[in-house]
Amino acid sequence: MNSKTPSESRTVMTDMVLPSETNPLNNLFGGELLARMDRAASIAARRHSRRITVTASVNHVAFNQSVPVGSVVTVEAAVSRAFKTSMEVYIDVWMEDRFTGTKTKANDAIYTFVAVDDTGKPTEVPQIVPETALEKERYAAALRRKQLSLVLAGKMKPHDATELKALFMEG
Amino acid sequence: MNSKTPSESRTVMTDMVLPSETNPLNNLFGGELLARMDRAASIAARRHSRRITVTASVNHVAFNQSVPVGSVVTVEAAVSRAFKTSMEVYIDVWMEDRFTGTKTKANDAIYTFVAVDDTGKPTEVPQIVPETALEKERYAAALRRKQLSLVLAGKMKPHDATELKALFMEG
Amino acid sequence: MNSKTPSESRTVMTDMVLPSETNPLNNLFGGELLARMDRAASIAARRHSRRITVTASVNHVAFNQSVPVGSVVTVEAAVSRAFKTSMEVYIDVWMEDRFTGTKTKANDAIYTFVAVDDTGKPTEVPQIVPETALEKERYAAALRRKQLSLVLAGKMKPHDATELKALFMEG
Amino acid sequence: MNSKTPSESRTVMTDMVLPSETNPLNNLFGGELLARMDRAASIAARRHSRRITVTASVNHVAFNQSVPVGSVVTVEAAVSRAFKTSMEVYIDVWMEDRFTGTKTKANDAIYTFVAVDDTGKPTEVPQIVPETALEKERYAAALRRKQLSLVLAGKMKPHDATELKALFMEG
Amino acid sequence: MNSKTPSESRTVMTDMVLPSETNPLNNLFGGELLARMDRAASIAARRHSRRITVTASVNHVAFNQSVPVGSVVTVEAAVSRAFKTSMEVYIDVWMEDRFTGTKTKANDAIYTFVAVDDTGKPTEVPQIVPETALEKERYAAALRRKQLSLVLAGKMKPHDATELKALFMEG
Amino acid sequence: MNSKTPSESRTVMTDMVLPSETNPLNNLFGGELLARMDRAASIAARRHSRRITVTASVNHVAFNQSVPVGSVVTVEAAVSRAFKTSMEVYIDVWMEDRFTGTKTKANDAIYTFVAVDDTGKPTEVPQIVPETALEKERYAAALRRKQLSLVLAGKMKPHDATELKALFMEG
Repeated sequence: MNSKTPSESRTVMTDMVLPSETNPLNNLFGGELLARMDRAASIAARRHSRRITVTASVNHVAFNQSVPVGSVVTVEAAVSRAFKTSMEVYIDVWMEDRFTGTKTKANDAIYTFVAVDDTGKPTEVPQIVPETALEKERYAAALRRKQLSLVLAGKMKPHDATELKALFMEG
Repeated sequence: MNSKTPSESRTVMTDMVLPSETNPLNNLFGGELLARMDRAASIAARRHSRRITVTASVNHVAFNQSVPVGSVVTVEAAVSRAFKTSMEVYIDVWMEDRFTGTKTKANDAIYTFVAVDDTGKPTEVPQIVPETALEKERYAAALRRKQLSLVLAGKMKPHDATELKALFMEG
Repeated sequence: MNSKTPSESRTVMTDMVLPSETNPLNNLFGGELLARMDRAASIAARRHSRRITVTASVNHVAFNQSVPVGSVVTVEAAVSRAFKTSMEVYIDVWMEDRFTGTKTKANDAIYTFVAVDDTGKPTEVPQIVPETALEKERYAAALRRKQLSLVLAGKMKPHDATELKALFMEG
Repeated sequence: MNSKTPSESRTVMTDMVLPSETNPLNNLFGGELLARMDRAASIAARRHSRRITVTASVNHVAFNQSVPVGSVVTVEAAVSRAFKTSMEVYIDVWMEDRFTGTKTKANDAIYTFVAVDDTGKPTEVPQIVPETALEKERYAAALRRKQLSLVLAGKMKPHDATELKALFMEG
Repeated sequence: MNSKTPSESRTVMTDMVLPSETNPLNNLFGGELLARMDRAASIAARRHSRRITVTASVNHVAFNQSVPVGSVVTVEAAVSRAFKTSMEVYIDVWMEDRFTGTKTKANDAIYTFVAVDDTGKPTEVPQIVPETALEKERYAAALRRKQLSLVLAGKMKPHDATELKALFMEG
Repeated sequence: MNSKTPSESRTVMTDMVLPSETNPLNNLFGGELLARMDRAASIAARRHSRRITVTASVNHVAFNQSVPVGSVVTVEAAVSRAFKTSMEVYIDVWMEDRFTGTKTKANDAIYTFVAVDDTGKPTEVPQIVPETALEKERYAAALRRKQLSLVLAGKMKPHDATELKALFMEG
């Protein structure tokens, strides 16, 4: 199986924020954004693996920016690292002010997907070769995140998570 | 402001999984479940605070169980700990097999909400007094999660996260 | 087939009223509420019968309370009486004011469902044993309602509807 | 205020049954049909009154025919009788087989709407003059239905419901 | 195969304009109207052919009238001319002011559908016999439109489009 | 007002085809695609003009390729020519096979939008400078299309449409 680059799976989903997707302050519901990111990220994972892909986990997501009704939201997803049957997808969310056109970062998030066959059994995926500096940085950080995920799921003991441990000791 | 109990904010949202919410394996999209959990959790946060509430963050979420089309899904959310203006909401997701009625745990997740006034400014929320053993356990763990969240957001240095550090040292 | 209690089928569906579900006065459309009640009630009927269930009829429904946008609506459904292959489901609807949290009764309604097999043929359902005073009252009234339904459908002659006749004679 | 005829408010809503609106037997959900009928009937009530209209009640509805996915469904609504501020709307539902085109009656239902001003206060509506034999029959029966509705709502004593009482005595 | 008349396929779809379907000026999105017209027109094509029908093309559509939220919109579609396996459907769109009830023409559009069998292969459709003056006019113009469509698709050379050529020469 | 390039308004909307958007052959409804293209194109027009934009017209659209459920569809829109207050937007639609990843052209379409102020009054838009060969070709063809549109709307006499006339004479 040939390896691929992140840009081969890059997926761009631009759409408006409609009134039916907003809370009483007229900002996009967090849950709506989580769902849009899942759709974009699952397309990126499918483009990388050419398989059916199912959401395995979502990393910690912070909503620092509110996204007002009428904004244009761009969700950009690309596979940041491939493991045996799973893929980490890094998602950047941008919003544009309706009038000035100013584009600001609204969010980022990291989802993990598993590639499966028609019976739902996990299957191998191509490896990934990061190209840009940002892709390389995300690729490197993915291992640390995977360890955190395993620790939180109780599948790895904290003191075996060497990458993570270093993070908390270094200060 | 009087403190409240988790049961005062408990929110139950039971609904079916429709064909339009499923992936090619006929299982509920991860993103759909994230959106349902956000709706239920935001109602719990509102019931606790009697304020407009906005999603501040979502903890790591793992999807260990696929939820087939036609299942009945019960999302149960309750505030697990209140901070100054924010609330941690713990969400349990159950699914019932259409035919046998067997109820199994499908997921759990932790969302944080901030209470705001009409202008979007954070406002104080009542404190919480856990009652059951499970509520007490979730209340205690909430502080550790808050530290992890601050560390990941770069708002707290890892070596100041005393609760977390202990976790990684103890092994 | 063992009998069951109403609480075994009790189904709670809590959700917000979104702008896309409201009329020009910004209140929930009657039709939207009828659809939500149908979904909750069909889950209750399925929980009682462990079968596919189809809506057979809806009793007279009165909309005495308008439900403003942004309210939290709780639809609570439970089987009130089981007949041979059909079940009467009693539905209570509560709404909470967004700010005060005051919970008021918004509606109640009675739907009847039939349990069917995969070919759509009606199949027997477990009998029901009411427990609380309210459950017993609803159980008793169900027979009178069934007679009314048969009379209105032209399947029972008015003078054979002994329960109903009594009602109109007693004044 | 000039009186109107039922045909002046007649509203036809033809649409398909989509997969996302069907139960596990691939038939239209009862709740979906109730919502479509509410939309068509409220348009009919608005056409008669030229006011904002809100659903006041729904008469007993029986679902005798299942409506398979892919069917074309025609909902036809017209005001059958006007009272002081309320209107009874009679709704006929037809379905067409996708292949043969055979049109069969799927349902009928009776909804009542109240005309209101911008503050939600009930306002007077034009009277109605039935023209065809069917319209005259429905007009006449509307009074009996109104009494039943008042009795069920506890706003009229059964023995004052002269029209209704006659019905149950005549056998 | 017996020929049919346009009135045999006439399809009326009346519905409201909801807030979730409107742009920042609170008028119906052009795309929403295009989708409603497609649904109504495909039902008309199915009524004429009694086959599965798929959209083949949409003629030039101009949006001269904005349709405000809360309007009642009536989409009326009928087959205007049948070719071997395709049908031209003419669609008239009317809107009613919410308060005055004034009905104005909002749009018209022309869609072409192809009748297909279960494998997607085009199949023959009945011919059409226009009855009213308007139906006859639309029937006659359909040939000119078909030539334009073929020219634009590069399937007919402009100078072979005799009907069209005449149009541009006549001035 | 500074002129802009087509790439400054380029809008990419990638999304899946869900079961609720498909016809009985399990292919995307034509009307759904028309609505998606309208949303993408209106974002492109807004990016060019930084104004509210409303759909003015849709050119002839042919559906030559059916798009099966589960496909990934990419709608790519960019302003191809700006007139005084209106903009022509050229839309390319690509679909990817779920398994092989093969990307094929599914459609193209041309929509025209008008930029308006808050009262709905048309306002001037920046001019456009095409850069690539394809952009230049589309820019040049836009004038011919505008004439056709004016002729079809009865706002220009056919023999004044010099660009168009040439087209039909040249064969």
